[in-house]
Amino acid sequence: MGGNRRKMQGFGSLMAFSTALERLAGRKWDRIATEMIPVRESAGRISASDVYARENSPSFSRSAVDGYAVVSSDVSGASEYNFITLEVKGEIEAGRTDPASMDHGQAYEIYTGGEMPEGSDAVVMAEYAERSGNSLRVFRSVRKYENVSRAGEDITSGQKIVGSGEIIRAQHMAACIAVGIEKLEVFAIMEMGIISTGNEIMPGMGVRNTTQPLLLSYFSSAYMRTGDLGVVPDDPDKIRSAIDESIGRHHILAVTGGTSLGSRDLVADVLDGMGEMIFGGVMIRPGRTISLYDVGGKPVFSVSGLPVAALISLEAFLGPFLAVQTGLKRTRVVVRAAMTERVANRDGMRSYLRVRVRNTENGLVADPLRITGSGILSSLLLSNGITVIPENREGLEEGEMVDITLTGDVY
Amino acid sequence: MGGNRRKMQGFGSLMAFSTALERLAGRKWDRIATEMIPVRESAGRISASDVYARENSPSFSRSAVDGYAVVSSDVSGASEYNFITLEVKGEIEAGRTDPASMDHGQAYEIYTGGEMPEGSDAVVMAEYAERSGNSLRVFRSVRKYENVSRAGEDITSGQKIVGSGEIIRAQHMAACIAVGIEKLEVFAIMEMGIISTGNEIMPGMGVRNTTQPLLLSYFSSAYMRTGDLGVVPDDPDKIRSAIDESIGRHHILAVTGGTSLGSRDLVADVLDGMGEMIFGGVMIRPGRTISLYDVGGKPVFSVSGLPVAALISLEAFLGPFLAVQTGLKRTRVVVRAAMTERVANRDGMRSYLRVRVRNTENGLVADPLRITGSGILSSLLLSNGITVIPENREGLEEGEMVDITLTGDVY
Repeated sequence: MGGNRRKMQGFGSLMAFSTALERLAGRKWDRIATEMIPVRESAGRISASDVYARENSPSFSRSAVDGYAVVSSDVSGASEYNFITLEVKGEIEAGRTDPASMDHGQAYEIYTGGEMPEGSDAVVMAEYAERSGNSLRVFRSVRKYENVSRAGEDITSGQKIVGSGEIIRAQHMAACIAVGIEKLEVFAIMEMGIISTGNEIMPGMGVRNTTQPLLLSYFSSAYMRTGDLGVVPDDPDKIRSAIDESIGRHHILAVTGGTSLGSRDLVADVLDGMGEMIFGGVMIRPGRTISLYDVGGKPVFSVSGLPVAALISLEAFLGPFLAVQTGLKRTRVVVRAAMTERVANRDGMRSYLRVRVRNTENGLVADPLRITGSGILSSLLLSNGITVIPENREGLEEGEMVDITLTGDVY
Repeated sequence: MGGNRRKMQGFGSLMAFSTALERLAGRKWDRIATEMIPVRESAGRISASDVYARENSPSFSRSAVDGYAVVSSDVSGASEYNFITLEVKGEIEAGRTDPASMDHGQAYEIYTGGEMPEGSDAVVMAEYAERSGNSLRVFRSVRKYENVSRAGEDITSGQKIVGSGEIIRAQHMAACIAVGIEKLEVFAIMEMGIISTGNEIMPGMGVRNTTQPLLLSYFSSAYMRTGDLGVVPDDPDKIRSAIDESIGRHHILAVTGGTSLGSRDLVADVLDGMGEMIFGGVMIRPGRTISLYDVGGKPVFSVSGLPVAALISLEAFLGPFLAVQTGLKRTRVVVRAAMTERVANRDGMRSYLRVRVRNTENGLVADPLRITGSGILSSLLLSNGITVIPENREGLEEGEMVDITLTGDVY
């Protein structure tokens, strides 16, 4: 058969996962740029700095209801049958105003959001009082600070709102807005391009390219945009051109296909001539043929053309790459669940087992899926999570608690 | 104080959560339309039909590697020291071709994705054979079907790919593409408009509107688009206009503010004149002031102006509304975790407790947060999940397993 053929002699030439990770982490990659964006557009982005409140929220003590600002000790014991009479000194509308002040025996009519007058410490709701001219009858007692939002009671100046490397969620955005933060420093949206290679998936060849849409969708998020860079035949010049043309516009490239033990190693041959190999072949199952190259400071992953192997091996290294670059600790939801069956591990490989996670009375359990082919989409379709059997374990025990990365919904 | 005031006399007028749910579910709402969209654009949308494969994947038996198609029994016992010789009948390129056939003693050179010749049942990888003219030396035995992707071995015609009411994930999309499905029926992206009311949050009043950005971001997803419909002062005509102008363009409206026990019930008064009240006030904490109106067949929720109360009460009914409309079972990730402390429940209310979920050796645990104000954003900021204490329970026990809806990341 034509073409260069790199012989992978069994597992002998595969690298330990931990070594591959160390090499990835030890590399000087081009840094991902950061940018300042409006808080309201930051949902799902990765924060690039620790963000602290620089003021209190609320910024001033205010009424939480419509009613009357009073001194709580003045109305102690007030009831429907034993009302207490106060003098109304004036009205306070919503919003921050010129500070008012009052003494014992006095009250201010105050609206929701109105600034508490100096001297008052609680608000009697409007329905528990009756105003007539400047005279107010109060029919109910209030505790100190009742119906008052005190300055800083929610967020205190100096409080951390979101940490660098954390994904910005709705509550972070709302808290920023509460303390007047209008822009956040986030990592640029990462562009990951996916190049598919293989004569068999060229249009009209009868083999549908499922790996590419799987990766495009699975790795797409608010902080990472995946780009379809098309299908290239098994031709070194065309593969080289595809990489050359796209690497400038992307932070990360993934090239699928042309890696399996029995195919021509076209992608590896091309990448050898374009950059430096960081690792080539790792002791993981599925996806052991994954290779990583540094092409001008950017990572180019060469992964299997088979959908499940491509997804799992890319995820195994993309997460750590993002962690190195942005501090992002987790890219997916991880849950702990009890294995419902024993599962054996072979060959000292780090195995990524597809599982079906279910809710039970005693918490989450995980059924291992028995279909495990690298190309078998059904193994992803029928599972909703992936767990790792470490390379130094001969298997997982029944009942063992394991970490599971959710890949689908647990209904 | 001016304005109409609806007196909520304690909890007496609040409805049980289950009754409110029944009323919501029993109502004839306008149906959410469905649409056919390309599979590649369907990520995160809600499927509107059960989707089954109508063909096998792979659609024909093909080689998974570059090598030689053989009859596995012909090469039984072959090794480097004891090779077996076969006759090469021809070459099969990638993709579906005119069917070839072969007999015992013969082989076809075949490329990845090439259609298996009739009579063959396995492929010897190229590196374990040596071709010279039409003569092939095979140095390794193969099992039946080794290195072959058999027709239908991944997805079988008739197999379910995604169910109605399920969220479409990457694996569903890839499986659809594998079996030639190009379009999917999904529910239209739901438009939920959010109208904020309150003099105190009008520009320049010194009270920042955090509820609106919180809801806009929290409820935004691939299947639901949230729209900012601005801030309206406490003025019935302006509130009515805001609802009137926007209801035609939206599937759902949420109006925040003007609901708390101590404010003027402007929103309720306006909605009473525009539609039919389905429920008004529910025994949930926080967020008991939530009301639901049917305005011309569309749901309009009136919720608290306080951020946490608004979010929790809206979520409590939005999920069930989506379930009724689309069959969607879950809108968030729900995990089970053990409570680390006892938490009391008061007053027969259904309480939504903010918790901090952590991974431990024995699975997930949840620390209850002690700050619980309806307006306290920090309770969302410091928590990453919400659990429910049912109305008929006096609390949760230490060690009790509870369902937790994740609202943030578990690192």
